[in-house]
Amino acid sequence: MIRDGWFSESEVMWPGQAMSLKVDEVIWEGRSDFQDILVFKSATYGMVLALDGVIQLTERDEYAYQEMITHIPMHAHPDPQSVLIVGGGDGGVLREVCRHAGVQKIVMCEIDPQVCEIAQKFFSNSTATAFNDPRLTLLHADAAEFVKDKAQEFDVVIVDSSDPVGPAETLFTADFYRSLRHAMKPNAIMCNQGECMWLHLELIGEVLSHCKEVFPSVDYAFTTIPTYPSGQIGFLLCSTAPNVVLRSPARTPEPELAAQLKYYSSAVHAAAFVLPEFAERVVAKVRQPKLPSVCSSTRPSPFTMTSLGFALAGLALGVGAGALLRKR
Amino acid sequence: MIRDGWFSESEVMWPGQAMSLKVDEVIWEGRSDFQDILVFKSATYGMVLALDGVIQLTERDEYAYQEMITHIPMHAHPDPQSVLIVGGGDGGVLREVCRHAGVQKIVMCEIDPQVCEIAQKFFSNSTATAFNDPRLTLLHADAAEFVKDKAQEFDVVIVDSSDPVGPAETLFTADFYRSLRHAMKPNAIMCNQGECMWLHLELIGEVLSHCKEVFPSVDYAFTTIPTYPSGQIGFLLCSTAPNVVLRSPARTPEPELAAQLKYYSSAVHAAAFVLPEFAERVVAKVRQPKLPSVCSSTRPSPFTMTSLGFALAGLALGVGAGALLRKR
Repeated sequence: MIRDGWFSESEVMWPGQAMSLKVDEVIWEGRSDFQDILVFKSATYGMVLALDGVIQLTERDEYAYQEMITHIPMHAHPDPQSVLIVGGGDGGVLREVCRHAGVQKIVMCEIDPQVCEIAQKFFSNSTATAFNDPRLTLLHADAAEFVKDKAQEFDVVIVDSSDPVGPAETLFTADFYRSLRHAMKPNAIMCNQGECMWLHLELIGEVLSHCKEVFPSVDYAFTTIPTYPSGQIGFLLCSTAPNVVLRSPARTPEPELAAQLKYYSSAVHAAAFVLPEFAERVVAKVRQPKLPSVCSSTRPSPFTMTSLGFALAGLALGVGAGALLRKR
Repeated sequence: MIRDGWFSESEVMWPGQAMSLKVDEVIWEGRSDFQDILVFKSATYGMVLALDGVIQLTERDEYAYQEMITHIPMHAHPDPQSVLIVGGGDGGVLREVCRHAGVQKIVMCEIDPQVCEIAQKFFSNSTATAFNDPRLTLLHADAAEFVKDKAQEFDVVIVDSSDPVGPAETLFTADFYRSLRHAMKPNAIMCNQGECMWLHLELIGEVLSHCKEVFPSVDYAFTTIPTYPSGQIGFLLCSTAPNVVLRSPARTPEPELAAQLKYYSSAVHAAAFVLPEFAERVVAKVRQPKLPSVCSSTRPSPFTMTSLGFALAGLALGVGAGALLRKR
């Protein structure tokens, strides 16, 4: 995978295209019980972690993924106190979850202990900053097994998995989503890495259908990220409650959090659900509730101006009526 | 640039990273008076055009760029009748402009005649479909020279240039924007290829400042596109009129046009201006008018609900007052 000083991604899931990064130095290379692990220092993207030949993170753009997969579900929920992270061994999602002061309990279920070890060794300045948070319980287990006997425990579940080829395969099935739903509280929200609409629109449609069998509210959002295949990746958002408009954040980031964010904002949250037409046509068939995808500017709509006009006219009439009544 | 059956982009403007496409067959390779031209059939992205080693279009994703650079300015304008295309030799922007029935006059100023010839030869099923449109005047000239003596001629100007290294260098200067403004009607709108915020945020800030010296309304939008460096590219939007909110489309696509679109919609138009925080912080300093970047869902805001309530209350009072007045 490294040739002439360049790392290139293997292309099982994206044939005919490749993203390459110039390598300054290979830091760690080996195989865990589950996957090949590679850490290298890149020329222009900082430290890089690749699993089974696929880039999981670079220090230059990781926040685009970590912030969006975390803060979309966390801000779509009015008060998330208990959070389950599935996968996420590099610690990036954990870092973002820990930034929410209201969170009291975090369970992280990462099947591969070696990914956590390597993250803490080589990414302690970027993603792996919160493994010592006292709210965290870290488990190394198959998440599909772990959630089987859990009931109504979590407000937010974040499934930060690799692609559905390899150890993460079971994390994209209706069975897994059923177990997850059982483990989630009423009004809880789940966010799953949802592949790229430019590459896997059919798969996205299928997995969204799995989700819809299980969750009454389902939607799809995306983020841009240069070092993921085709430069972006999507998220499946689901709620255990019906009629939850996931694209409308229930909260805005606290000022202290907002100052730390490099990608997420309330406006970005809403815009992430606005899909290019070719993808919108597929997602619109599955999305629940069936709202059209609308993104408006700050200019008040004619509707608002009209209703304001009505309000003023109505008030004037009301005041006039009141005056008349007084006169009598 | 082609090695072992793979084409890789040269990396002058994006060091340490490369996008590669698998090549099935080289179709045409040579040098015009202005640049190296390469046409190849890729394994999974259809036919590809590269200029000076940089991918200009692939048949699989070109519409993401062509639709957005064209329909954002065309729909931000209430009634575009005369359009200037600067560059755009592959014909993609021309194809999209021609889809607007209201357009009466199109001038296209592409410095390199050979790009137009090659597009018509090898891309006649994708981008080069409208070179015979009777509304078109095709010129092969330096656009910076061409616009110098034009005054108030165009409603929309689309600058579909390559990067500011090579023949397109003059198309990113304040001088060029001054000439363009002179060539534009009152309330006209200009859209310029605006580089990628992940790679060239500093350059974007500088060029936006050039624009602001010249145009009273300035903003920045982006599109996702897998085969451009880092998977996206931006657009500089400017109006000759003050206080034009470019992110609010003045029109929605006609039904016949909407059916042809694969990327653009009114919602996508508005969302394209919602930037990740790291870019928003830079663009917000320059943007005119100084609106916050807000993207809302279809859920009516409390403001709207309140004013609707006021309207209804006001109306009820008004009706009551009317009834009382009649009784007297």
